[in-house]
Amino acid sequence: MSKEKPSIPKGTRDFGPAVVVKRNYIFNTIKRTFEKFGYLPLETPAMEQLSVLTGKYGDEGDQLLFKILNSGDFLSKTKSEDIEQGYKHLTRKISEKGLRYDLTVPFARFVVMNRNEITFPFKRYQIQPVWRADRPQKGRYREFYQCDADVVGTNSLLCEAEIVQMINEVLTNLGLKDFTIKINHRGVLAGIAEAIGEKGREGDICVAIDKLDKIGKEGVRKELLERGISEAAISKLEPLYTLEGDNEQILGQLQTILGGTTEGERGLKDLHEVWMYLSALRSQALTATNESGNPRLMLDVTLARGLSYYTGCIFEVKVNNVSMGSISGGGRYDNLTGMFGMPGVSGVGFSFGVDRIYDVLEELQLFPDSSQVGTKALLVQFDKESEMHALPILQQLRDAGVASELYPEPAKLKKQMGYADQKSIPYVILVGSEEIATGKLKLRNMQLGEQQDLTIGEIISILTK
Amino acid sequence: MSKEKPSIPKGTRDFGPAVVVKRNYIFNTIKRTFEKFGYLPLETPAMEQLSVLTGKYGDEGDQLLFKILNSGDFLSKTKSEDIEQGYKHLTRKISEKGLRYDLTVPFARFVVMNRNEITFPFKRYQIQPVWRADRPQKGRYREFYQCDADVVGTNSLLCEAEIVQMINEVLTNLGLKDFTIKINHRGVLAGIAEAIGEKGREGDICVAIDKLDKIGKEGVRKELLERGISEAAISKLEPLYTLEGDNEQILGQLQTILGGTTEGERGLKDLHEVWMYLSALRSQALTATNESGNPRLMLDVTLARGLSYYTGCIFEVKVNNVSMGSISGGGRYDNLTGMFGMPGVSGVGFSFGVDRIYDVLEELQLFPDSSQVGTKALLVQFDKESEMHALPILQQLRDAGVASELYPEPAKLKKQMGYADQKSIPYVILVGSEEIATGKLKLRNMQLGEQQDLTIGEIISILTK
Repeated sequence: MSKEKPSIPKGTRDFGPAVVVKRNYIFNTIKRTFEKFGYLPLETPAMEQLSVLTGKYGDEGDQLLFKILNSGDFLSKTKSEDIEQGYKHLTRKISEKGLRYDLTVPFARFVVMNRNEITFPFKRYQIQPVWRADRPQKGRYREFYQCDADVVGTNSLLCEAEIVQMINEVLTNLGLKDFTIKINHRGVLAGIAEAIGEKGREGDICVAIDKLDKIGKEGVRKELLERGISEAAISKLEPLYTLEGDNEQILGQLQTILGGTTEGERGLKDLHEVWMYLSALRSQALTATNESGNPRLMLDVTLARGLSYYTGCIFEVKVNNVSMGSISGGGRYDNLTGMFGMPGVSGVGFSFGVDRIYDVLEELQLFPDSSQVGTKALLVQFDKESEMHALPILQQLRDAGVASELYPEPAKLKKQMGYADQKSIPYVILVGSEEIATGKLKLRNMQLGEQQDLTIGEIISILTK
Repeated sequence: MSKEKPSIPKGTRDFGPAVVVKRNYIFNTIKRTFEKFGYLPLETPAMEQLSVLTGKYGDEGDQLLFKILNSGDFLSKTKSEDIEQGYKHLTRKISEKGLRYDLTVPFARFVVMNRNEITFPFKRYQIQPVWRADRPQKGRYREFYQCDADVVGTNSLLCEAEIVQMINEVLTNLGLKDFTIKINHRGVLAGIAEAIGEKGREGDICVAIDKLDKIGKEGVRKELLERGISEAAISKLEPLYTLEGDNEQILGQLQTILGGTTEGERGLKDLHEVWMYLSALRSQALTATNESGNPRLMLDVTLARGLSYYTGCIFEVKVNNVSMGSISGGGRYDNLTGMFGMPGVSGVGFSFGVDRIYDVLEELQLFPDSSQVGTKALLVQFDKESEMHALPILQQLRDAGVASELYPEPAKLKKQMGYADQKSIPYVILVGSEEIATGKLKLRNMQLGEQQDLTIGEIISILTK
């Protein structure tokens, strides 16, 4: 047996109790909202066939897949030529499975495999880890959770409106107030490309303007030129970076600019309909404003996201006044399952970035006390008599639903109090000889440092409040 | 892109919404009890260093580890000799990580890595999947959840008593009534070996009597003889298979048989103390009886489990009158972290077999209706006017905490009702022209097939009852 100091693979993390409890608070808040909107959970295996995963994430993605060595003598079917042809060739001979890289491809695979049993529209959410052999760095891990919700099998824009509602509800329930939900539409982007005389070039335009935040207007101009967009087109494009006014005014200005283009018209019509739905739902996203006075839901024509996939509305969410990228995003797609030969499955989906949300809640100190508590009361014992006296009390506390512990040994008081402290247990109950004699127990509020002599009934009513 | 029909790796499963909801009901019931007893959640990465995993599960276990191919050009550091030496040798050159095989070794690794931050006694639970390259067969999967709770850093037998309490509480909360918690002690087994004249041979004896249920008394006799246990010893052993009486009487008989042996004394003393704790806790495990009239907690000297690991009390739980192996088990160990060079960490732990519990609850039809419900009410729409009328109602329902959906399209009534049916949505609310005119909505109870005309306020009070 190895006696060397053990370690964990780089880019992976252990989550100790305090962190798991806080992460679960986020997961549970998200799940509750998903379920309130009719989304139901799906879970797929960690391992997928490499034939399912390969070719879905581009060449770079294929490189980042974790591949699992075939069990047993994986070399039994290889020849020396297979090895001479290099690792990429050999991989296909000795590995048939890989770890899940995202939740979208497994979802598509599930839909195709169960097409005859699924009732559409199919609303599913999925909260599971994914693995990527990325170079680990601050905030980027090799194992991390994704948290997706998708509805497939309907084109109704009510789904888009409900995504705005769900984002608003989850973040509000997490205590966030100053955040912006950006929305745009692929049709608007295509319409812009056409209107500035670069029809069909929206891909290049989007890749460039997606970087506006990072490299600024001049940087984007340089990149657009490199990508072959004309000076004239860029000059027509730039005023769009800073459209002024509320959403309605911006929609109006866009109508003037894109009105003549088929794609632009499609995008504006969809956006109008999303607004109509939100307004009928009396959405807070329309009425709330952030600290700088802007509406919570903002039409942003510079929002691009990965265009290859999305075909309709796209979303992205940023918490304001916090140095953190987007914490949620998504959009509509036309063809989820085409990669597996099943055409015509359209839908819309989005996901939450739980690691980022965690960091934001920490920074803003928004984790509620209740999300940090495990055990509510620790019974402290001093000797065998005190232990025997404490046992039925322990049982009464648990019967009343109070998470409680009896320190399992008559250790020094300091040690037992230290245990309560380390575990952030808010109440300690002392069972000493005095307490046994009087029938009243000492209840110590660890936060306030106050003690009271109380009957067990009184203690239970305090602890179950 | 591949157009062939996609599949999932053998031995793995997709869990669709109905199954996830039921599994979560089991997980949540278990978690609630763990937390009530002061156990807190830990999560470790799916991948571990192979140096951490290898050599911990025996040669067979090493073969069953799923190994992950190193990223990038994994052949860059291999020579042709490495390949000629066969797959086992090559594996060490091209793979450094493997998938978690159980939750005990990662827990031990965590304790060693965090020894300076952990406050002992350390109570943790862990509910995560593990992976084994076993031959898949009925009830045996390559990916399955384990559900462990352990407390390390104390020798107090209160922990054993609390394990009995937790098992009793979880199974009772799941609706099970007729189950048996078997308990035994490693010292009792060693004492028996000594008392029958085969001191130190408890390993062989246990492997054999562990099969008593399967191969019967004669089968066990044959195996014991093969393992070199004498005829005389076996004849002394066999009466122990059928000790008569309640637990106290059995303890008394054992006292007579093992009283003189050090290990036997140790075991009986521990068992007496566990009973003392349970009695002070007024444990239902002592008072409840199963259908055949036996006590729920039963001392069973033929209970052996994997002896190499355990050193004190051992547990196993069976549901009676159901054809299913044990659904829970565990025991005390002396030396969790010795494998990583950190001696002296003793503890006791147990785990629930969630796949088996799931099958038992299905067989006995014990899943409550509430564990199967997602959406509570579906709003059915007929046209644009009805949709617009339904939207604020949808919002009111959700504001009241009712999981609800509006069918996103004005599809045929039959289709919308079919959707509610498929999703087991218990209530449907019809928003037709009549309802818009009268202000009363039609609420249909899908199970009873009854309809009522009600205001939205009345509906909410029914749905939130």
